[in-house]
Amino acid sequence: MNYPNKKKQFEKSTTTSKLGMTLEADINLTNLYYLEKNIAVIHKKPTPVQVVKVNYPSRNKAKITEAYYKTPSTTDYNGIYRSKYIDFDCKETNQKTSLPLSNIHKHQQQHLKDIHVQGGIAFLIVHFKKHQKYFLMPYLVLKPFFDQEINRQSIPYETFVSQGYEIPFGLMPRLDYLKVIDQFLIV
Amino acid sequence: MNYPNKKKQFEKSTTTSKLGMTLEADINLTNLYYLEKNIAVIHKKPTPVQVVKVNYPSRNKAKITEAYYKTPSTTDYNGIYRSKYIDFDCKETNQKTSLPLSNIHKHQQQHLKDIHVQGGIAFLIVHFKKHQKYFLMPYLVLKPFFDQEINRQSIPYETFVSQGYEIPFGLMPRLDYLKVIDQFLIV
Repeated sequence: MNYPNKKKQFEKSTTTSKLGMTLEADINLTNLYYLEKNIAVIHKKPTPVQVVKVNYPSRNKAKITEAYYKTPSTTDYNGIYRSKYIDFDCKETNQKTSLPLSNIHKHQQQHLKDIHVQGGIAFLIVHFKKHQKYFLMPYLVLKPFFDQEINRQSIPYETFVSQGYEIPFGLMPRLDYLKVIDQFLIV
Repeated sequence: MNYPNKKKQFEKSTTTSKLGMTLEADINLTNLYYLEKNIAVIHKKPTPVQVVKVNYPSRNKAKITEAYYKTPSTTDYNGIYRSKYIDFDCKETNQKTSLPLSNIHKHQQQHLKDIHVQGGIAFLIVHFKKHQKYFLMPYLVLKPFFDQEINRQSIPYETFVSQGYEIPFGLMPRLDYLKVIDQFLIV
């Protein structure tokens, strides 16, 4: 496992004064921590690729020589925690005042809804880089924006502050989003 | 949605006297049926690919020119049904008397165990092509083989018949494995 050395990570994040690497890398490290501590089993799905051409230079090795990235049909992350089905996607933005809805594909919106309807815990984790803040946004807070009951093209930063749950950035795990779920979402 | 025309499918499967296409295709059609009927949300994960080289022939289009298939670190399928976390893999074999354990990667065995420990429903769906039979095998039936408490390199066909649950092959859905889960696994 590539779980990083505690000290090294700490030095890195303090000397560069950058909070974390990318959100995806931070979530992946967090999930690895959860897995190794038997807290939860949550994995990132592979990026979907449309393979067009494959060569076989040797008998056992297939070499893909033409392929294209596909739009994912679901969210990137899912798994199980305390017997509950967990499903989410991560979004990072340089915007200060809002998260554009165009960052959340229509099929991802539909997927989060499908999961919520089935009784799963569906949400987004959003990183506002300029504020250095991370928020967990449950589906029900996002729903009026997805369904255009609130007629806007973006979700205001104030909505994150007032209706979302802030995830503190830490050392181990980096982004303890399951603690937020413990407090607010599982009753 | 590419859900096939009922009549066409029926003709195809009867005229060729082949049961289904491949197991994966049959499961994917079954999952699409579940999704459209709001019965469950279960998706196949994309096949993981290690991308080595990407070209950008035009500004918006990334063309992958060198990539390799990676070994999946989990099972291929997961999702939610009746608020329960579901996780499984599909295996197809031409063997008559047993399923070789080598068909189930060590990390897949570990993943099924992790899911079971977290309270999820973990299993395999196995197609014995020569018998034209499909079985759902819960993790607990597989466990003694995975852990080598039963000291064999394969799981005997009799174990499937006596301890597994047969999934009848149908028209819509093709392989109604959630019905098996209704009957036997959710209490």
